[in-house]
Amino acid sequence: MKVITTRQEIQNISLHHKQKGRTIGFVPTMGYLHEGHLTLASKARENNDIVIMSIFVNPLQFGPNEDFETYPRDLKRDEQLAENAGVDYLFVPSVEEMYPNSLSIQMTVYNRVNVLCGKKREGHFDGVVTVLTKLFHLVSPNRVYFGLKDAQQVAVVDSLIEDFFFPIELVPVDTVREEDGLAKSSRNVYLNAQERKEATQLHKSLQTARSSIENGERDINKIISEIENHINTTTSGTIEYIEIYQYPSLKPITELKGKFIIAIAVQFSKARLIDNLIMELA
Amino acid sequence: MKVITTRQEIQNISLHHKQKGRTIGFVPTMGYLHEGHLTLASKARENNDIVIMSIFVNPLQFGPNEDFETYPRDLKRDEQLAENAGVDYLFVPSVEEMYPNSLSIQMTVYNRVNVLCGKKREGHFDGVVTVLTKLFHLVSPNRVYFGLKDAQQVAVVDSLIEDFFFPIELVPVDTVREEDGLAKSSRNVYLNAQERKEATQLHKSLQTARSSIENGERDINKIISEIENHINTTTSGTIEYIEIYQYPSLKPITELKGKFIIAIAVQFSKARLIDNLIMELA
Repeated sequence: MKVITTRQEIQNISLHHKQKGRTIGFVPTMGYLHEGHLTLASKARENNDIVIMSIFVNPLQFGPNEDFETYPRDLKRDEQLAENAGVDYLFVPSVEEMYPNSLSIQMTVYNRVNVLCGKKREGHFDGVVTVLTKLFHLVSPNRVYFGLKDAQQVAVVDSLIEDFFFPIELVPVDTVREEDGLAKSSRNVYLNAQERKEATQLHKSLQTARSSIENGERDINKIISEIENHINTTTSGTIEYIEIYQYPSLKPITELKGKFIIAIAVQFSKARLIDNLIMELA
Repeated sequence: MKVITTRQEIQNISLHHKQKGRTIGFVPTMGYLHEGHLTLASKARENNDIVIMSIFVNPLQFGPNEDFETYPRDLKRDEQLAENAGVDYLFVPSVEEMYPNSLSIQMTVYNRVNVLCGKKREGHFDGVVTVLTKLFHLVSPNRVYFGLKDAQQVAVVDSLIEDFFFPIELVPVDTVREEDGLAKSSRNVYLNAQERKEATQLHKSLQTARSSIENGERDINKIISEIENHINTTTSGTIEYIEIYQYPSLKPITELKGKFIIAIAVQFSKARLIDNLIMELA
């Protein structure tokens, strides 16, 4: 595996491989890799000639009161993990490399963002689509891999690719979980021991909701209440939202039909955790 | 030459050629081709394996009171001219093909736009960069060709490519002129016979300015006044602007030094004409 730090070099590498007719699978990350990321890399490895992973903690997608400075970083460990996962090129640019000048052109996301995490993170997805547009042009991937843990991000990337006709296939990958069900996340390290135990209840509450829907429950408010009660009685966290939308449009839903998402966010003392469940009903 | 109307087909074609290691030169136009466009196509033909031209009158870059509906169109003639100029693929999509859904993500240009034509055409360049982003993703060009007659457009496309790291080389091409000096433009057909004669004075006034600068004139206001007098005494048109800026930044200039542009716009009864002169002083 080669570690690349300049945009010129990664662009030359990707154009070289494209010119040879090779396919490129791309896994954009913010690093501090866990099995979720490595699963994305494995999927990319299965279906492409070349696998490129990027590690870039993108300042543009963090709000002024968010954890850009303290976001966990461990590049040495990440390099080892990426190499073991079959990554060919690890692109690790500096902030100056990705933002050499202030931008003359801004991208603003208007749909799929004023719900779920986007509601409280103004401008977050503007930063996400901006950095992805840059990365896509540097890497020229045939396929790009994102985890469904951040299902709203997958929905917004779907918009990005569709709106601007990127010649890229978006491959959403199921959330990877710890043995006890907790969704893998770089932010799990912020949990204390007690919270770490409680955090498994996010997934459990969604599994309970799945069962009741499979058993015929169709009352959206009732499903939300059940999840709310579950989390309030089993964790010390504060619920930020429990919402149900059509997926991937993230439009309001009045009847449980078609593809939909149940998404939750819970704030613990230092960690804000998200999880979701995507289902489809005829 | 093949005429292509769907984005799926043009994207397949361009990806096919890229995969074979062939270079693609791209000439985006709004059609009603004149020698200016054909010169762009010839330059593309010289330096690339494949030449793709697009003809698309982009509604997003026209203001509500502008000439989108009446913009001159003559596809049959354009096809013949493009073929003679060595174009391999002529991409002629419908509005529905380029804008199949309302956009979730908007691009807004903040620099290089609040001067010259951009000042009076709010949102014009937002429409330009949006459609070019789409077209670039459909065509995957190595090089893209634009005429310097619209020097502000060249400056904005330069920003677009630089901001988002498009793997594309921008090739600006000198303005092509009629024998009497009038810059070729699809909108010249709007001129009546008397105006057509007067219109040559735009270029003449700029040539006079060039001479006086070459003879040592450095007073910016004086240069502007001379052009103003020239146009006012020799044409029936109304001057919209005569401005001098650094180029391509289009930042204000206090001293004639480095690369700069003198740009003018004159409104005739039905035609609004623009012309410019780019110079560089040590």
